[in-house]
Formats: sequence, structure tokens, C-alpha cells
Amino acid sequence: MNPTNHQLRLAARPSGLPEPSDWELTSEPVPQPHANQILVEVSHVSIDPAMRGWMNDLPSYIAPVQLGDVMRAGAIGRVIASEHPGFAVGEHVFGLFGVQEFAISDGSGVTKVDPSIAPLPTYLGALGWTGLTAYFGLLEVARLGAGETVVVSGAAGAVGSVAGQIAKIKGCHAIGIAGGAAKCRWIVEELGFDAAVDYKAENVRAALRERAPDRVDVFFDNVGGDVLDAVLTRLARGARIVICGGISQYNARQARGPANYLALIAARASMTGMLVFDYADRYAEATAELAGWLREGRLVSREYVVEGGVSAFPEALLKLFTGENIGKLVLTVP
Amino acid sequence: MNPTNHQLRLAARPSGLPEPSDWELTSEPVPQPHANQILVEVSHVSIDPAMRGWMNDLPSYIAPVQLGDVMRAGAIGRVIASEHPGFAVGEHVFGLFGVQEFAISDGSGVTKVDPSIAPLPTYLGALGWTGLTAYFGLLEVARLGAGETVVVSGAAGAVGSVAGQIAKIKGCHAIGIAGGAAKCRWIVEELGFDAAVDYKAENVRAALRERAPDRVDVFFDNVGGDVLDAVLTRLARGARIVICGGISQYNARQARGPANYLALIAARASMTGMLVFDYADRYAEATAELAGWLREGRLVSREYVVEGGVSAFPEALLKLFTGENIGKLVLTVP
Repeated sequence: MNPTNHQLRLAARPSGLPEPSDWELTSEPVPQPHANQILVEVSHVSIDPAMRGWMNDLPSYIAPVQLGDVMRAGAIGRVIASEHPGFAVGEHVFGLFGVQEFAISDGSGVTKVDPSIAPLPTYLGALGWTGLTAYFGLLEVARLGAGETVVVSGAAGAVGSVAGQIAKIKGCHAIGIAGGAAKCRWIVEELGFDAAVDYKAENVRAALRERAPDRVDVFFDNVGGDVLDAVLTRLARGARIVICGGISQYNARQARGPANYLALIAARASMTGMLVFDYADRYAEATAELAGWLREGRLVSREYVVEGGVSAFPEALLKLFTGENIGKLVLTVP
Repeated sequence: MNPTNHQLRLAARPSGLPEPSDWELTSEPVPQPHANQILVEVSHVSIDPAMRGWMNDLPSYIAPVQLGDVMRAGAIGRVIASEHPGFAVGEHVFGLFGVQEFAISDGSGVTKVDPSIAPLPTYLGALGWTGLTAYFGLLEVARLGAGETVVVSGAAGAVGSVAGQIAKIKGCHAIGIAGGAAKCRWIVEELGFDAAVDYKAENVRAALRERAPDRVDVFFDNVGGDVLDAVLTRLARGARIVICGGISQYNARQARGPANYLALIAARASMTGMLVFDYADRYAEATAELAGWLREGRLVSREYVVEGGVSAFPEALLKLFTGENIGKLVLTVP
């Protein structure tokens, strides 16, 4: 067994985009599990926009990562030692193991994953929180109905790419907003979105007027900023906006709200914030349905895998904000 | 019969606060009703923040007032000639009669009002769209529950003052945000709000931390801007924000959205726009309940009556934006 556990810790609170000096790479001996604990060897770390929020010292739905702590992260790993009756050595598991090579866990919040059903990284993508967020956001928060027009921002990203595909599976007209021709081509040609809007090359408002002439019934927003403001001008009556994220604002020193929010009145529309954790008691049922769609080829999960281990995390995280990744950003840990 | 009908027409589209030059006072002979029409002598004109929106040439829930048209306004009047089988001379009616002394109507959207139940101006206040907006906003959009903490902005205004009182009637803890000591005193001492926040003298966020320690379950917002941003930082989990209006933004040349809107995620909260017109089929039932509360003394309707007839409308409208009125702003037409 590797005697050393390399870890990435939060060293300073960033203002704006995280910088190398906000992180510290440390190492310590690999710990051994006590009674009712497991030792997990981490293989894949999930890199999510929400992480940027966890780095701020602000009250939110989850406590901030403290300075000096191992950076919080969802991750996949293999149980390599177990003193826990519920987990056996060799099993693959998902949990909040953090950006490190080995993690001790008491099993809370840890779920088993089956590499015979899908490759391990997919359990951070379509079969993980990513896919579940899209699933519950559209089906529970937005209460999607067949035939509706659904717009998704960050449509080539982890959650957005699944959301658009679920909209199609549910018989909706799906339009994705993404940055750049490659992403727009991918979501239409590979994922089956009906149309794409390239926010870097097009006027989003004008493009939606053309591609969603009957206006927007559901907007699944991962982006905020100008994109949200543009969609607000094109709402159908009774539209539902799911606020899943606002990546355009996460590094802003001066956050900006949607100037067109009063359009909610004319459209009798709603804007609702969501967190996937509220649906934990239904993860199994939803994952089974998502896995079925994957098996049938109706749902594509794409992961953008970065190699290099925990020391590569700081640079990998920035890819989310430069929009480099297509699909779910995953860091492998050797 | 007065042979002349004085009318106020929209002459130009304002940018920012409406100016005297945006209006034109005209007169024409009082028309006579044709078959299935009534002639109404207007006595009270409703002055509402929403009017500012009707003056913009922008698509919304209702067509803009066209340049040269009589300004749209809800009003109370008396039928003085009738060729309509549903209306008799002498009856008092409410309808979109406009800012003029006499109006012809085919009866559509016209409801009868009973001055033996409440004074005529009250039919523009607690027993009119004002009261109905507060009623349906809290009970239908927010789905208010007993024991919840309800915050109302524009709390000394027409809709806000009724909303806070309905919250109290429904067993909630009601906190009003208003500008100035007189308004704050009035809503607590006369209307029975549990507490007030004077946004002109206090830090709203700090005041809410103190006066709503269990956070805010329902926010009925008439104001937007800094007030909305402050309340967004104090949401309880599952909070519902009713977007009834945003008077702080109506004259802004550069509208501003709620920079803290991402707080909706952490709180799993919603922000929903509403228009009272969607509940037209339930006006009668709601008005009966509101009238019952008035009769029992549990609900106070206060009107701020400005005299001077249609020529006084332009200046009276501005009182809404300077915050001069307490209660429902009404213009009498002699």
C-alpha cells in the first residue's frame, strides 16, 4: 500500500478566480480505518462549479471549506480496507472523499457503484449528482410537461448536457445555449438537442426569438448573467426557471442580478433554486431510470477526464470557468 | 349634464419619471351611449404603480397606452345613462374608465360596487384590485401557512398594507418594510404588523436579522432593488417570494436585478411573478371575505385621496414614486 496520502488543501480564500497560491499540497501517512470505518483509494475526483462557492466564507447550504482543510469533493474510489460491516474490500464507492489519494470514511453519504453497469467516471456524470440534478430539476422543480419548450444554459456542461437529453426523452423541444461552435455542434448532433444558441457568437435574445418562436416554458439555468437576462425576455406564460447555478457570477467580485427579473410578473413565471441533496431518498429510483436510458442509448454521458492527480486540481478547476470542458469534468487520481 | 368631458391623454413616452410634457389635457363633448352601452360619470380614479409600465412601449401583460390615448386607469363612477340591460342609471360601478370625467363602456370588465357596504374609494383599496392582489398573492401564490414569518415591502402602500394585515389574520408574524417613521408607526400601531423596518433609516439586512431571527418564509415584494437584495440574504428554507411589483425600478433608465438571487439555491426558494387578473373568476368570493374582515374591524383600508380632477393626475402619480402616500392613492374627479 502507498504509505503516503497526497492531499490538496485550501490555503487562502480566493477573490475572483482561484489562484495557485490559494492551494497547498500536503502529504501525510495513509491512515488506517478504525471500527466502523473504511479506507478508500480515490480514483476519480468530481470537479464542479459549486466548489467555487464552498471556498467562500459565507453561510450557504453547506459549511465553507475551512482554511487548511482538504478541499471538499465528491469522488469515486475503491475500498482497500474495511472495518465497516456494510462495505467489503474491493467495492467501488462514491462519497465526499475530498481532493486526496486516500480517504477514511464512516460510510455516511457513501454509495456503492457498479463498474459493470457503466464506467466509473459516469458515476460522477449522468449516474451521479450531475445527472440527478438534471433529473430532479426538470421533473420535480420544473414539473416538465411533454411538448414544452425547454432551454438549457451551460448546455454542453455536465448538468446541462443531461438536462437537454432528459427534455428530449420527455417529448419536449430542447434548445441548448453554449459557448462556441464545437459545443453547439455536439449538443445537436450527438445529444439530439433540437437547436443550439452560441452565446459567444450570437445575440441570445434574437436567436431565441427565432428558435423558440412559441417562447420558453422551462429554463434550466446554470449560468446567470446576460444569458439569464436574455431568456427572461422570452418567457411563455407560466414559465418555470430552475436556478441550478450561476457560473458566470461565481468569480465575480461584484455579483450582478437579472435586470429583467420583473418579466416574471408579465409571464406569471417563477424562478426556483434547487439542490439535488433534497431528493436523496429518491436517488436509487432516479439512477435506475437514468441507467436504463444510458443502456438504451437514449442518454449519452460524456466525461472530460483530466489526468495528473491531486496536484492538477487547481488548474483543472479553472477549466470550468474558461469553458474548456465538454461534458463532466473529472480528475483522475493515479 | 355636463356637456364637456375633460380627459388626460398620454402625449409622450417618459424616460425616467413622467414629466408634465408627457401629458395633454383635452376635452370633448360628453358622448351618448349606443345600444348595450352605458355612460359613466367618474368620481374616483385609481393611481397605481403599474401605470408607469403601461406608459412604456414594451410588450407586457397588457398593451401599452398609445400616444394620444386617454390614460388607462381603473376608476369608480356612477351610471348616468344606460342602453345596457345589465346596468341601471344610478348604479355605482368599477371599470377601466381611464383618466377622464365621463366614460362610455359596453360593460365588459365592469363590476357593480355597493356604497352601503364601504365608501366608494375603498373599492379601489381593500375591496378593489389592491386588496385582491394582496389576497391572492399571499394565499394562492405564496400559499401562506399559519405561523410563518411574512415580510412585506411597500408596507404602507396600497397593496402592502393589506398584505400585512392578511398575514396577521392568517396567524403569521408580519414585518413591514416602509420608508420613514410615520409609515412604520402606522403599520404597527394602526394595522397590527408585529414589526416595521424603516429602510430609509435602517440597514434592512441587520434589522431583519434582529426582527425575523427565524428568517423569512414569505416575502411579498412591491419594491425590488436594495430591499429585495436585503431580504434575499435572510430567506428560510423553502421561502416563497411573491413578485408583485418593483417600484424602485419603474423609473430607472438602467434597471437593476437582485444581485443576491443565487440565495434562492441555498434556500431552495422561489420567486414568482403574479397578476391579479388571473384570479378574476374568484374576485367575488375574495371580495366577500375581505368585506367581512373590514366589517369585523380586522382589516383597515386607508385611502390617500387627492382632489383636483383629471388635471391633477400627473402630479398625483408622482406621489407614488416619492413615497408621499400612505395607503391607496386615489384621485377624485369632481
